[in-house]
Parts: sequence; C-alpha cells; structure tokens
Amino acid sequence: MSIEQELTNNLLEDLLWSLPKHKISGVYHYAVFPPGKLFRPKLVHAVALDLTNSFSKNHRYLASSIETHHAYTLVHDDLPCMDNDLMRRGRPTVHAQFGEWQAVLTGDALMSSSYALLSKIHHERLRELLSLFSWATGAKGLIHGQVMDLSLEMNSSTKNLIETHNLKTARLIQTALVGSSVLSNAPLKVSYDFFRFGRALGISFQLIDDLCELGEENLTDHEIAINPWIKDGESIQKMSLNYLAKIEKFFKTNNYANLKIVTNSYLTKMSELISTKSETISKQTKTDLNPLVSALNRINL
Amino acid sequence: MSIEQELTNNLLEDLLWSLPKHKISGVYHYAVFPPGKLFRPKLVHAVALDLTNSFSKNHRYLASSIETHHAYTLVHDDLPCMDNDLMRRGRPTVHAQFGEWQAVLTGDALMSSSYALLSKIHHERLRELLSLFSWATGAKGLIHGQVMDLSLEMNSSTKNLIETHNLKTARLIQTALVGSSVLSNAPLKVSYDFFRFGRALGISFQLIDDLCELGEENLTDHEIAINPWIKDGESIQKMSLNYLAKIEKFFKTNNYANLKIVTNSYLTKMSELISTKSETISKQTKTDLNPLVSALNRINL
Repeated sequence: MSIEQELTNNLLEDLLWSLPKHKISGVYHYAVFPPGKLFRPKLVHAVALDLTNSFSKNHRYLASSIETHHAYTLVHDDLPCMDNDLMRRGRPTVHAQFGEWQAVLTGDALMSSSYALLSKIHHERLRELLSLFSWATGAKGLIHGQVMDLSLEMNSSTKNLIETHNLKTARLIQTALVGSSVLSNAPLKVSYDFFRFGRALGISFQLIDDLCELGEENLTDHEIAINPWIKDGESIQKMSLNYLAKIEKFFKTNNYANLKIVTNSYLTKMSELISTKSETISKQTKTDLNPLVSALNRINL
Repeated sequence: MSIEQELTNNLLEDLLWSLPKHKISGVYHYAVFPPGKLFRPKLVHAVALDLTNSFSKNHRYLASSIETHHAYTLVHDDLPCMDNDLMRRGRPTVHAQFGEWQAVLTGDALMSSSYALLSKIHHERLRELLSLFSWATGAKGLIHGQVMDLSLEMNSSTKNLIETHNLKTARLIQTALVGSSVLSNAPLKVSYDFFRFGRALGISFQLIDDLCELGEENLTDHEIAINPWIKDGESIQKMSLNYLAKIEKFFKTNNYANLKIVTNSYLTKMSELISTKSETISKQTKTDLNPLVSALNRINL
C-alpha cells in the first residue's frame, strides 16, 4: 500500500469516529475526501520515521488531526465573505455545493474534530502538543494570517507579505514537523530546528506559488498589480533563494532521509510548475528568473 | 469583589494572552465583553468549591475556556447565513458591527482560543478533559444541535426538539459541570451524576426559553406555528416538570451548596420571566401553565 493510500485510509477511519451518523456527515466527508497532496500528514510521517523508525498510533492521530484542520481552513477560506471561491480540486467548493451555513458548520465541525483527534493521543507531552497546535493555528497564528490577507495588510509591504505566508502557510507545516518531533520525544534543540526549517519550507512554497499564479489565464489587473513578483521581483527572488538555501543547509547538517524525500518531491513539483508556465510568467515579470529555476533544478537534497 | 467581577477579570486576562497585538483583537474582544450571565463559568466555579473547597488555576482556565467557546457559538449563530441576527445583548452583533468575514474569523479565533486556554491546564486528566470538551462541543455535540436547528429537523418531532436542546444547550453546560468535576478528581459516579443533572438543566432551560419567546412582540406566524408550546403544550409542560423534578432530586441526594445557589438563581430567573410575560404567553398557548409556574415557585432547593 502506498503511503498516500495508508494516510488516506487512516484519515478516513479516524475522522469517521468523530462524526455523527447523519447525512450532514456526507458534507463533512466531501470537504476532506479525496484529500489533496497530503503534504502535512506526509511530513508527520517522515519525521516519525526519521526520529523513531516507526509511525506510531500517536503520530497517526496527529497526521489525521492536521489534515482535518487543513480541510477546515480551506472550507472557510472559500466562503463568499472570504475568497468567494466556487471551485477547489476540480469540484464545487462546499458552500457552492451544499450552501453557506452548511459550509460554516463544516469548517467548525472539522476544526473541532482536529482537537478530538488530538485527544486520542496517549503521550506525556500531550499538553505541549495542544499548546503548540492551538497557538500555531489560532488567533496569533494561521487565523491571523487570514486576517492579514483579507484586510489587505498582506499587500502593503514585503515584510507583511512574508509574515502572512509565515502565519497562513508555515504555521501548520511547523505544527506537523514540530508536533511529530514532540511525539518522538525529540530534545528541544531538534524541535527548534524543525521549527525553523518549517518556516523556510512554508514561506518559500507560498512565494513560488505567488509566482506560478502569474502563469494562470484570466488574471485581473488588480491581481497582477498586487502580485509581489510584479511589484518587487528582484527582492522576492532573492528571498526565495535565501529560504531555499536554508532548506538545503538543513539537510546538510541533519540526516533525515524520509523528510528529504518528501521535500525533494515538493521542490521538483515547484520546479515543474514554473517550467510549464514559464512563458506566460516571463511575460508578466520583468525579472530574470534563471537564478530561481536553476537553484530549484540544482538542489538535489 | 463579586464572583461575576472575578470571573470577568480572569476571562479578560486569560483571553488577552491568546490574542495578537493587533486591531482585530478589538473585534474578538467585542464578541466576548461585556459577558452575559456567565452561567457556565459560574457552574465551573460552584462545582470546584463544592468538591474541593477552592477555585484552582486549572478550574479558572476551564471557566475562561468554556465562556470563550460559548462566545464563538453566538458569533457564528448570528451570521447572515445562520440566524441572521443583527442585535445581541443590546448591541449590534459582530457581523453587523464589523462585517461578515470578520465575524467568521472571530468565531474561528475564539474556538481556537478556547483550546489554547485548555492547554494552560496542568492536570493528569487533561486528555480526558480534552476528549470531553471536543466531543461535547463538536460534530456529534453542540455543532450537531445547530445542524438540527438550521435544517429544521428540530421542529419535526418532540424527540428531535429535545435532542436539539440537549446538544445545542445542555452539552456545554455538561462540559462545565463534568469538566470541573474531572479537574476536582471526582470519581466516575460523581461525574456521571453531574452529566445527567446538566442534561436536565440545559433542556429545561431551553424549553422554558421557548415558552418565554411567546411573550415577545412581533412574532411571525411561522415562529408561532413551530413553537413547541403551541404545537403540543401539554406534553412539553409535562416534560419540563419532569426535568425540574430531576433537578430537585439531584439536590436532595447531593449536598452541593454552591451549585444550589447558582441553580436557584436560574430557576428564579425563569419563574420571573414567565410571570412578567404571562398575559401575552397565555394568549398564545392553550395550555394551563399553572403547574409549571407553581413548580418553579415551589422549588427552593
């Protein structure tokens, strides 16, 4: 069984336990399945293997919890009053398919279920994990990233852009990495290194995602105007290279074979994304993107 | 300092810790302060005093967590896609005052903060508490009560009505009572009695609230048509009396002086509510409400 299949099966079984036997669970189910790339559960899994050589029940509940939490953020972000997105992963979004109150409650139910899944963990450091999880995803964390995004503070400076990506994207990745290290009884220093690595991974991912957005058709003038690669391509590329260098350095000083595989597949993905859309992207940016493309191709962790 | 003042001060200090230093925190603050009757924190407090003769830091965090969670449910329930309420506690609701995405994120932030507050608890039974909390308030609990309400299943049978009140109202009251007993290291039997008492308290409160609604002006024909006291006043009164009898019996077999005070003030409040609106209510119901009114007056726990 592939790791995707295993993580999906776990998620299916774990989530089912927290949902009522009622037709509304079909809506909850729709919001989570089929899952996306399972990037965060794969990070939990890889760190568990690298640190303990096994994927324990506790790690498994953390992986399911984080993916469930991720699904909640997508459902609420898509709402008409937020991003008003009608399609996701090739299907209508939850509110488009089932209605708006159903989508709000689905988000609420999934956030709550992510904590119910944490409560299945038997570990002496559960309190620490709960503290990390609620901080990283809460009012000072992920949710604040969404506040900065919707209030347009994100677009007012590069510093705000990076902070938004840090909160909205990196925090949940950090929860996966650090949380898995805590359940592996890693010392503080190790967890801290994962924390910094997660920041670099999350921010670089989001910056390159911003770049790839320029490859899409039907962008509005506003979307083009606020894109950081249009506004300040040189310095955004510099930052991206800087974060990629941190990722590279992390693997030079740490021997994490499993995490390396997950990270490599992600770097390859980013590189491919840029390549396939390079023509449209180049038309938009006035920046020579060769340094970024060759860095992505060169890195083989 | 009154207990209201003490619980409010604690809540203020505890919640502040989980919020960012950013203007959005003014919105989060608005959703919680000034608090309502603080009924649930008072239950946590009373059980702590009755079982341990003290109100520990752990009990305090539970009280703040539950009130924060309660505030989240109100903000989301008021949304345009849910009950579309514009006023609450004599002021504009969060979405009416600040906008819709702000209200969705405020609810999300407060739910998350309620878990962050739980993570401050140092107690060997934290896992049990987290499990209770996320179950009672989650997809099988409080949120499912809201699903039954909005999907109108609540109105299709008396059984569904009672179940909706049980989930939407009793579950959080049970979390306060049972959670406080867990933090007091009560044996399972004691916690179970609190669980059953919380069910009777929550459902009777909501049934009498349904009755008082008939005393309000400007009710629509639909609101009158679906009111359980109009549809089946006799049997709803019978049930209410039955739940009140359970509350009375609970205090005959348990000597909980502090919980008795909180419950008494709540019964008095209900009795007063009915009395002040009795004329309008009588016009609507075809049921002789004397048994209920005299039961409420007679009970002096």
